[in-house]
Amino acid sequence: MLDEVTSLPNAITIVVHRWEESKGRHVERVTGRGARQAKGTMAESFPMNGGDGTYSYAKNSHYQREATNVAKEMINEVIAEKLDVQSLIASSSNSFCIADLGCSVGPNTFFAMQNLLEVVDKKYVTQGATSESLEFQVFFSDHASNDFNTLFASLPPSRKYFAAGVPGSFYGRLFPRSSLHLVHSSYALQWLSKVPEELLDKTSPAWNKGKINYTSSSDEVANAYAAQFQKDMKIFLNARAEEIVVGGMLVLIMAGLPDGIHRSKFPLGVFYDSLCSSLMDMVDAGLINESQVDSFNLPVYAATPKEITEVIKDIGCFSIERMEVADPRSKLGSSVNVPSLIMHFRAGLEDIFTKHFGCEVIDELFERTFLKEAEISSALESSYKKGNQLIVALKRE
Amino acid sequence: MLDEVTSLPNAITIVVHRWEESKGRHVERVTGRGARQAKGTMAESFPMNGGDGTYSYAKNSHYQREATNVAKEMINEVIAEKLDVQSLIASSSNSFCIADLGCSVGPNTFFAMQNLLEVVDKKYVTQGATSESLEFQVFFSDHASNDFNTLFASLPPSRKYFAAGVPGSFYGRLFPRSSLHLVHSSYALQWLSKVPEELLDKTSPAWNKGKINYTSSSDEVANAYAAQFQKDMKIFLNARAEEIVVGGMLVLIMAGLPDGIHRSKFPLGVFYDSLCSSLMDMVDAGLINESQVDSFNLPVYAATPKEITEVIKDIGCFSIERMEVADPRSKLGSSVNVPSLIMHFRAGLEDIFTKHFGCEVIDELFERTFLKEAEISSALESSYKKGNQLIVALKRE
Repeated sequence: MLDEVTSLPNAITIVVHRWEESKGRHVERVTGRGARQAKGTMAESFPMNGGDGTYSYAKNSHYQREATNVAKEMINEVIAEKLDVQSLIASSSNSFCIADLGCSVGPNTFFAMQNLLEVVDKKYVTQGATSESLEFQVFFSDHASNDFNTLFASLPPSRKYFAAGVPGSFYGRLFPRSSLHLVHSSYALQWLSKVPEELLDKTSPAWNKGKINYTSSSDEVANAYAAQFQKDMKIFLNARAEEIVVGGMLVLIMAGLPDGIHRSKFPLGVFYDSLCSSLMDMVDAGLINESQVDSFNLPVYAATPKEITEVIKDIGCFSIERMEVADPRSKLGSSVNVPSLIMHFRAGLEDIFTKHFGCEVIDELFERTFLKEAEISSALESSYKKGNQLIVALKRE
Repeated sequence: MLDEVTSLPNAITIVVHRWEESKGRHVERVTGRGARQAKGTMAESFPMNGGDGTYSYAKNSHYQREATNVAKEMINEVIAEKLDVQSLIASSSNSFCIADLGCSVGPNTFFAMQNLLEVVDKKYVTQGATSESLEFQVFFSDHASNDFNTLFASLPPSRKYFAAGVPGSFYGRLFPRSSLHLVHSSYALQWLSKVPEELLDKTSPAWNKGKINYTSSSDEVANAYAAQFQKDMKIFLNARAEEIVVGGMLVLIMAGLPDGIHRSKFPLGVFYDSLCSSLMDMVDAGLINESQVDSFNLPVYAATPKEITEVIKDIGCFSIERMEVADPRSKLGSSVNVPSLIMHFRAGLEDIFTKHFGCEVIDELFERTFLKEAEISSALESSYKKGNQLIVALKRE
């Protein structure tokens, strides 16, 4: 997963905007103490930094873990309520298959899978499980360029599941028909399958000159991103509809924007804008060309519940069991460590920047961004506080 | 898989010693033109050389492929005859799961899996398949230290299966209960899970002083190897009995010794003995200590059909559908390329030698062995010619 991190200081509660299918509206509730909010995602050919060095994802992904913890409560609740484990495994020799799509190299995926396993097992027991215990198979999936060697080397020795790695893009089929009972994906789906082509077309109104994302760009640019997200999400959901057994569930955590909030207030945009500003400084210093910045766009999009709902209804194979936009604020009060957040960004973004700008400018880019610490903190303060962690729980009908 | 290669010159036919369950005896038949015979195997913590460099397994495993081709005919025949594909997949949404245990990094595993897929699909069609086609999931399994990154990067783009990697030792469970329809393992099972402890005990009659394998050692040493093989094979078969659905099949190709042939005539021993002789030369040259050689043993064993049959009957969950000791002789007549065979050895054995003797002596060890080309060719000539490729096809009852 690529790392995108925002941390909103001085807040200890999580405000959850829950979308309730039955009521057809969003309700707001306070779920508990917050965590530093973090986003990590994944895109074709841009793996997280492998290995376990200073800039590795393995060493720079604890924010993502904290973000996952925030989602955990809701996920556990919806699985306990909605997943009929006993009938699901009746035809599978008591084995239960879980997949994590966009798993990266760990350790976050291990914590998430362990949690799901425990929730499913508990539900199974409450359903009056027989003496034969459940066997779990967990599929860790990410692009073939993901560092699976590191992932496999760091599998928890005490795990109670059979582990498998599945290489490939989730914007396509990865598993046989009806072979999965529960699919999870955390901070991966905001990564588009590609940059919309019109962003690079100088004659298009969606040409994204001098910008590297859409949050502070024109509506035309934002619309191009939105259209790409809709296309990608359709492909994703159609593939999962084939792979998940009827009655199985799909749980998604991703960067999201609450309905009715303008994209320019999206906190992640603050980080992208500061990276872009560093790039423009480097143009001024003659280190890179302006055309290199013009032709670079991060294929990342934060969708609203409304957008996601539209795609799900179009597909028609899933019921929405829960949809929330959570705001997991910092547990650490005002002690936001922007340099540490930038390190998280680097673990996730280094590859995509390197491929476009060359490896010789990466240190310079992140060092210049480190110097914008105060600017980033202040910009984050003025971004909206209504949540940017979208949690969706779907059931295969 | 580790590479162990023997090539028997000037022969173009394959003499197959088939063990027929129904007749309770071995029959000899000539099946066709031979190929260079090769053996590649795998052991805990000793992966094949990764990547795709000069000494990589990926670049030095074509002998193994040729050996697999020799086994292909028999395997295809027995699957076509004995595997009831249609009834197997009735409860699995028309998806068929194959696993290759000890797959290494490719490309041989890809050829083997593609072949199995085609045979199964063909059988399915002859069984009057409905319009819905089979979907295949192929699990590539090897130790967690195997280079799965290289394996995944080199998956055939045109493959018609969903690929997954499964890290772990096959001397233990790797998959959920009854989740596999067909399991394949090529040149992996002659690798023991460990060196029998008594070989290192100076007070034991099985102390293997000055030797690195058992073929030219005392009966006590050979018996210790045989006992370890029996233990390991039981663990292997018990695990597979859990994982393979009733009616599913297990196909094994491994180094083997025909019943009634003395181990000292085993062609692979020639290579191990020449490596051992190089090591002893290095002792004389003061490059390594004699105690280092005394405490090193290759955990490789070539079992006889009789030994394998005993274990299978002990386990009791499998019927023996076919068992053969094939002798796939060189298609290339007298043009045996011993240096090329040694390169194959190196790709598979470098890791295990490095871990014991240190990486600084590896070049020296293989260079000295290269100089023994004539000696190796001549020793191969005097080894037995009755086959050393054991092929076993079992059905889960």
